[in-house]
Amino acid sequence: MQTEQKRVNLAEKFSLFTDHWHPRIVGELNGQQVKLAKLKGEFVWHHHEEEDELFLVVKGKLLMKFRDRDEVVNEGELIIVPRGVEHCPVAEEEVHILLFEPASTVNTGTAGGEKTVEKLEWI
Amino acid sequence: MQTEQKRVNLAEKFSLFTDHWHPRIVGELNGQQVKLAKLKGEFVWHHHEEEDELFLVVKGKLLMKFRDRDEVVNEGELIIVPRGVEHCPVAEEEVHILLFEPASTVNTGTAGGEKTVEKLEWI
Repeated sequence: MQTEQKRVNLAEKFSLFTDHWHPRIVGELNGQQVKLAKLKGEFVWHHHEEEDELFLVVKGKLLMKFRDRDEVVNEGELIIVPRGVEHCPVAEEEVHILLFEPASTVNTGTAGGEKTVEKLEWI
Repeated sequence: MQTEQKRVNLAEKFSLFTDHWHPRIVGELNGQQVKLAKLKGEFVWHHHEEEDELFLVVKGKLLMKFRDRDEVVNEGELIIVPRGVEHCPVAEEEVHILLFEPASTVNTGTAGGEKTVEKLEWI
């Protein structure tokens, strides 16, 4: 069952994995998924054709690079990256994020490459 | 512009209002909205016909009553209430929540009544 009424404890879910740039699904609603990921280092420049993407920083400090500027997103802050906008997330130190995005979203967007995770698991 | 790349600081947004049971919109993506609300006391029993609803507790402790049981949702936890499921949020002490739900969602669902907020504003 994808849509449920069970509580999700973010800290508990984050304790279940240690790898970076590999989102896990923790909830689904209205065709959107809630994912958790740990980030460290620099990701790849990419965009999503059809999906807007929300990043909520649960721990740490995320640098979101855009082609025309950088945004620093601190703990307790969120940023929405609209479809079509190129971005590159960078985490100098480890960052924990919560993502809201359509179930169809691939982490590397149209860029592909070795950091692409084809099939995400639920935790 | 509804979809943007600006950072949203949750604490800063929560400082902009004091009333209870009156959600404010802070973001929009993929037809869904991100809302913030302060809760205190007991809401009304209601359900949403077409919308699943996510509650993320940013501060405090939320009691979510269902017809068959209660769930306590603590700070750093989220709960997804599927469409059609009757629920009644209760906050003994003030609770700050982030909501993620379709833009069409009315706070009191099909129940209506005096706690209904017809038109939500952006902050």
